[in-house]
Formats: sequence, structure tokens, C-alpha cells
Amino acid sequence: MFHRILIANRGEIAVRIIRTCREMEIETVAVYSTADAEALHVKLATRAVCIGPARAADSYLNLPAILTAAVETGCDAIHPGYGFLSENAELADLCAECGLKFIGPGGDVIRTMGNKAAARMLMRENRVPVVPGSDGPVRSLEQAAAVAGAVGYPVLVKASSGGGGRGMRRVDAPEELPGLYAAAQAEAVACFGDGELYVEKLILHPRHIEFQVLADSHGNVVHLGERDCSIQRKNQKLVEESPSRGLDADLRQAMGAAAVRAAQCARYQSAGTVEFVLDGSGAFYFIEMNTRIQVEHPVTEMITGVDLVREQIRIAAGLPLGMTQSEVRQNGHALECRINAEDPGAGFRPGPGTTRFLHLPGGPGVRVDTALYCGCVMPPQYDSLAAKVVVHAHTRLEAIRRMRRALEEVVIEGYPTTADLCHLILYHPDFVKGKYDTSFLERHLEALLQWEGEGER
Amino acid sequence: MFHRILIANRGEIAVRIIRTCREMEIETVAVYSTADAEALHVKLATRAVCIGPARAADSYLNLPAILTAAVETGCDAIHPGYGFLSENAELADLCAECGLKFIGPGGDVIRTMGNKAAARMLMRENRVPVVPGSDGPVRSLEQAAAVAGAVGYPVLVKASSGGGGRGMRRVDAPEELPGLYAAAQAEAVACFGDGELYVEKLILHPRHIEFQVLADSHGNVVHLGERDCSIQRKNQKLVEESPSRGLDADLRQAMGAAAVRAAQCARYQSAGTVEFVLDGSGAFYFIEMNTRIQVEHPVTEMITGVDLVREQIRIAAGLPLGMTQSEVRQNGHALECRINAEDPGAGFRPGPGTTRFLHLPGGPGVRVDTALYCGCVMPPQYDSLAAKVVVHAHTRLEAIRRMRRALEEVVIEGYPTTADLCHLILYHPDFVKGKYDTSFLERHLEALLQWEGEGER
Repeated sequence: MFHRILIANRGEIAVRIIRTCREMEIETVAVYSTADAEALHVKLATRAVCIGPARAADSYLNLPAILTAAVETGCDAIHPGYGFLSENAELADLCAECGLKFIGPGGDVIRTMGNKAAARMLMRENRVPVVPGSDGPVRSLEQAAAVAGAVGYPVLVKASSGGGGRGMRRVDAPEELPGLYAAAQAEAVACFGDGELYVEKLILHPRHIEFQVLADSHGNVVHLGERDCSIQRKNQKLVEESPSRGLDADLRQAMGAAAVRAAQCARYQSAGTVEFVLDGSGAFYFIEMNTRIQVEHPVTEMITGVDLVREQIRIAAGLPLGMTQSEVRQNGHALECRINAEDPGAGFRPGPGTTRFLHLPGGPGVRVDTALYCGCVMPPQYDSLAAKVVVHAHTRLEAIRRMRRALEEVVIEGYPTTADLCHLILYHPDFVKGKYDTSFLERHLEALLQWEGEGER
Repeated sequence: MFHRILIANRGEIAVRIIRTCREMEIETVAVYSTADAEALHVKLATRAVCIGPARAADSYLNLPAILTAAVETGCDAIHPGYGFLSENAELADLCAECGLKFIGPGGDVIRTMGNKAAARMLMRENRVPVVPGSDGPVRSLEQAAAVAGAVGYPVLVKASSGGGGRGMRRVDAPEELPGLYAAAQAEAVACFGDGELYVEKLILHPRHIEFQVLADSHGNVVHLGERDCSIQRKNQKLVEESPSRGLDADLRQAMGAAAVRAAQCARYQSAGTVEFVLDGSGAFYFIEMNTRIQVEHPVTEMITGVDLVREQIRIAAGLPLGMTQSEVRQNGHALECRINAEDPGAGFRPGPGTTRFLHLPGGPGVRVDTALYCGCVMPPQYDSLAAKVVVHAHTRLEAIRRMRRALEEVVIEGYPTTADLCHLILYHPDFVKGKYDTSFLERHLEALLQWEGEGER
């Protein structure tokens, strides 16, 4: 087992990883920017190294600084967390060259899954359903038009190297295609230095369903069930749950098997997430695989009792999975709400600052993952996730009620947050019934904010 | 189901009860003394009523004030928590007279179990093993001497109405008996207005093992396994765990069956705890039944997934238990550490005050029950329990490691606490092996405090 792990991240996920390392009696080295000198992950790690100025490009994205810190502090592994360098194939490669273990899949797997068109091809070849569209990238506007005509409008034109909606355009009719194709290509070149595009049918109002998988270096692959992450705004998830009300046992088994096949054909190792869209007819399509731990991983931990970070570390150390598929148990229901330092009433403008007062919920069935403490500063340079509140209960309704009362206990003074909006979502009849898809938040946001203004809780 | 419950308590247990009430969508009325106007339970309840000055006798023990508050605020039930009036039969009787439901057993059951000699008799008659000693109270010094001679010294002479060690004397030899008998009797009269005594053999170095039971008004009784509470100082528990390393499956079944018989023969209703001592040979003896929720109840909640406060409320409302004995599952291992505002290095002198800074642990498998918040005042009038840190993991060793890391995250500034002492206990080889009894803390305290002084963690 590793002796000392460098955590190439900050915020709640760095704290999360330190917790598991402590429980495994592994020392931790935190890295931090000058803006994070007083951050919680710095205080909790065995030791900490400043790696540069506040701007992420100069610190948390600074590959040489991070590798140097790892080597100089005698680390034998690096955990990248999520975001930052977590899906950077070069870091994985350089770790191998420096004699460090990268806690994640190999650089080649990250590259394959990072190229969306290539990943699509691989999945198709291995009977993992993909959204109807081009076989790999399209070579011309004419080919794009032919594919779009065949699968039917609306379609998405997407950059192979894309992500986060950049280099992507929705096309509703043939006459729109030339202009939007050119725009997507120009953006893809600008953002990723790669103008390669592919075409996908647009699945209207799907659920976003993702499966957590674990794969070790001995060829064992299991899935740990799904997370329904359909409550999102501009592809940013806000509320996640497991199990999903959109799946019955047969569909869960079929999607789980597809997720395992996806990991197998990619020769995946580590914890990963296979993301699908699920349409109203029960058809599901692979969209991408995230080759890292996800923000919402605690939802799965709550219902399975599996520590996913621990499994990542064990897998990286060459140990076999702690469970077979038949030993994976899904108990009860879990929900996560993301408390972001954003103002929902002002277009979700991020407004971090000093946490003047803080009270977080506790008691039965409640887990909080955060790097906040009373008086801490949230620097404006980084993402606005302030805390994750996760609950577990026997039934979905009990979990919803538990989350409501947990959010009622949250007090964060110093900046606006999404806590009240999450609380309101938990009272929306469609959410309570489990009848929602990725359009939920867009459709109901105005009404929810109206409720909030009226103090209807 | 009840509409509105008055919580006749304060501190973490009042917060704990409010949490379950919120999840059950039951309104809560907090009561508070003038010292507790800014207390967390007051802030979290639906509404709050001041019932008197800081001194407990004038507020939290003030029966008329509490009943008046309940009636005037339209409550239909009272939850007494633990301590204060929780084992006061008169409150149970008066609730019935006022048309309020007392969330606990009836006054007659509280009275029977409150008289230790009577409870002993009842248990003997129902094949629940009791410590060898007198059949009920002794009528004279001569009878006490005869019993002591028969069971063998050392013995305890105990007040029938006693508790907390008052009216109790350890007698090591026949010649000590007359003086100590008289002293116990005098103390019993002074403390309880009742000089009745009984005699028990002293079980040397036992484990303190208690079984959680639930009994409803339909005759259903189940037990939810044991808690090992042997880490204690002067009968004050400090670290509790479940399951106990002192029990194998057969002994667990035998003790569980005895606990269920104890509840049945007492015609018990509500959550209750049957306390036993367990000697080194595997023999166990009933010592008393606590007719209320216990401080350490979360340990059982963590391993069974049962919300005990919810069950108490459901039982009081006349509903049947949510589970049969065969449906009770005990998963993994749970530990609780009590963070008291006491200075272990100064004879555990309580020293509450203003909580200048507070940071509590989070992350996987950690539960914190507390009424603390940054800046809150712990009044000196009440008990010194500041927070309970509870962890759950698959194995005992994982739970120990999880608790160590959780305690390492605790920061409480403003007064000394028992957090560091608990942390040291978790490193003691005898604790790690599970080889400990009620003499552990007394025997090792000095060495543990020495470690602390040396900063060896």
C-alpha cells in the first residue's frame, strides 16, 4: 500500500480524499495556491506545499509544480480529485515516468474517453447503445447533412474534443446546419485546437442517468448502481439521487450491464462513471465516460456502503476489488444537494467571499462534505461548490423529508447560496413524484424563485 | 399521528428529537430556561416557550411550567428526552390527566423500574438473571449479613430508590458491614427520603452491556442488539460501541432474549434499555432498566438503520413496531465518543463557557449530534455533554480508524473537552483488541493523560 499520497486538488474533494487516507493510515501532502494558505485541506493534510499563485493555471493546473512537489515530498502516488488535472492524460503519463502512481486510469484510457467521437465508436463496437448519429467524426458539412437527415432533426453538432457545452450547437432544421456547423467548428478550434466534429440526434427531455463502475487491474469490473442527475442547469448538476425513479429492475440491469461493458472494452481501471441519457420510452444511450471520481459520488457511497476513494486507492495499488457484483448491495435511498456560492436570483452569479457564520446539519442519516469553516474565505478563482449535503433513508420520501430538514439547518452567512433553491426543489410536486428530466430546472426555475420571494417554504 | 410535540429537554437531545419530528412533519415546541434563550433547540423548534430561570429545578424540572406550556401551545404529546424529568412517573401520570401523551412508558412502569429492589424481584420471577443477593429489600443488618455471607464478599449495599452511586456502599469484609450499612441507609434517607436497602454481590471488573429494546402497545417486543459501555468513569460512560467484542452469537442471543423477557414482564412500552453486567466467565446479570432514550442510542441507530426517536413517537401514537425481531439487521460496527466540556487533566472538572471556535467532523460514516454552534454559550448549570461523535464502518478496526480521524478534525475553542482523551483511548492496545471492562478507564487514566502531555498521538 502507498505510504504518502499527494492530493492535486483543493476544496471539499481534497478534504474528502484526506479523510480516507487518514483512515487507511496513509500520509497526505496537500498542495495549495497562495489564495488557499488557510484552506481546510491544507490544515488537515500531513503536510502542505505551496505550488503557485491563485490563478489555477499557475497552481492547481501547474503540472511541473505538482510533480516536483510529489517527488520532493517523497510521495508514491497522486490523487487528482475531480476537475483541474483529473482527466489530463499527460499527468497520468508523467506520473508513470516519475515513478509515481496516478490514482486513476492510464493516460491512454483517459485519451480515448476524452475524444468523444472515438469513445462513441468504441462503445458502438461493443454493443453499448450510443445516440444515433455519425460513425465517428464527420469529414464535411455534406456528410453532417446526410447524417442529420438520416437520424432526423433536431441534432447536435459536437466537437470531438469538447466538453461543458463548448464547440456544440443544436440544429433544428436543415437550413440552419451550414451556419451552425461553421460556428461549432470555429469554437472547437478556438477552445481545443481541434476542429473535428461529430453529429448526434438530440434526445429531447431525457433523464441524465449515470452508473458508477469500479474496475481493478485483475480484470474485475462491477457497477454500483445509478445516479439520477437530471436536476441540472446548463449541464451543472444541482440535486442527485439514487436509485432513480426512472428505472425499473430490468432497465437497471440492462444499463448496469452496458456500463460494465463500457468499462471492460475501454480496459478501464479505477472508479469511473458511465453517463447515459434515458428517453421517455426507456431507450438509453451512452454519452460519455468520466475517468475520475465525481462530485456526486457520496450518493453511491450512502446506498452501497462502499468508500469509492478507498477503492480507487486500492485499485491503484494493484489490489483486487473488495466485492463481486453479487455482493454489491443497494440499500435505501440517497439524495445529494449542492450548496454553491451562487445567487440563483441573479443568474447564478458566483459570489464567494468570507464565511462570516456557518452552521451545518447533523443527526441521523446526514453527511456533509465541505471545506468550509467559520471565518474561512472562499477565493473567487475557483469553482463555487461550498458544501454537499447528502442524506440516506429507507425510502425516497423519507430521504426527501430528511433532506428538507437538513437544509433547514444550514446557515451560511457571507454570500448567497443555492441552499434555499434546493430546498424549494424538494417541495416541487414533480420532484416529489420523481417525474422530472433534464429540462426540470429550466422549466420551473422562475416559479421556484417566485416561491422563494414569497417565503413559501 | 401527533400534530405538535413539546420537548421537555435541552441541548443535543432536544435537537435530536426536533430532527425526527421535522422529518415526520410534526411541529415542535421547545422549552427553555433564561440561560438557554439563544440555544440551538430554541432556534430549530417550530416555537419556543421560556419556562423559568437557569436553575434546572426552576425550569427543566418544573413540572407545572412544562405542562402549562404544553397545554397552552396546543401540544398533544411530550417527549422528555433523557435526564431531567425523563424517568419521573409523576410527569407520565400528569400527562395522562391533561390529555397529553407521554412519549415513554406509563407511570406505573417507570415506578416499578425506578425501585431497584422491586425490579430485581420482578426479573428473578421471570428468569432474567440478576446479580446474586437479597430477594428484594433487606429488613435488618442481620439479614444483610446473612445474605452477604451466603453470596460471598465483596458485596454492594444499595438503596432501593438509588441511582448514580448514591446510597450505595462497597463492603469487602463482614466486620465493615455494620458501619457501611448504616452509612448507606443514612445517605438513602437523605437523598431519596427512603432508607430501604438491598444487597448484591459485587461483580468485579465486568463489562457493562446494555440491550436496546422496543415494545409497542400491541404486545410486540424486539431487541436491537447490545451496546458495550464499559469505558466509563464513575459510572459516566465515555466511549460506547456495538457490537461488543465480549459477546459471541450464542451469548448475544441469550442476553437479547433476556432483555426481551425483561421488557415483556414489565409490560413495557416505548424504547428502553436493559442494562447488564457481564463477568469474565460469560455470566450476565440484570442491573437495571432505563425507561427512556439513552445518550448512546445513535450507536444502535447506526448499525440497525432504525430511528429510535421515530419508533418512540410511533409507539406512543399507538402504532405497531416497524419491524419484527427477524427483520432487525445489525450491519457493521459503530462507535460513539462523548465530547464533554470537562478537563480530564483536572479531575474532569466541568468548565463550559463560550464556544469561541468550532469545527466538527464530516465525510463518510460520521454522524455528529450536538447543540453547539460557533459562538454559542454552554451554561454552567447543565450537564457537560457538548457533542457526540458517532461513526459507522464495516469492521471494528475500520470504525476505530474512522473515529480517530473524525476526532482529529474536532476543534473546540473556549473550554477543555474530553475529545483528546477519547482519541488516546482509541490508540490503547487493550481498547484496540477489545479487551476491556469497566475498570479500564480508572486503570489507564493516568497513563493516557501522560501520553497526552507528551503529545503522543
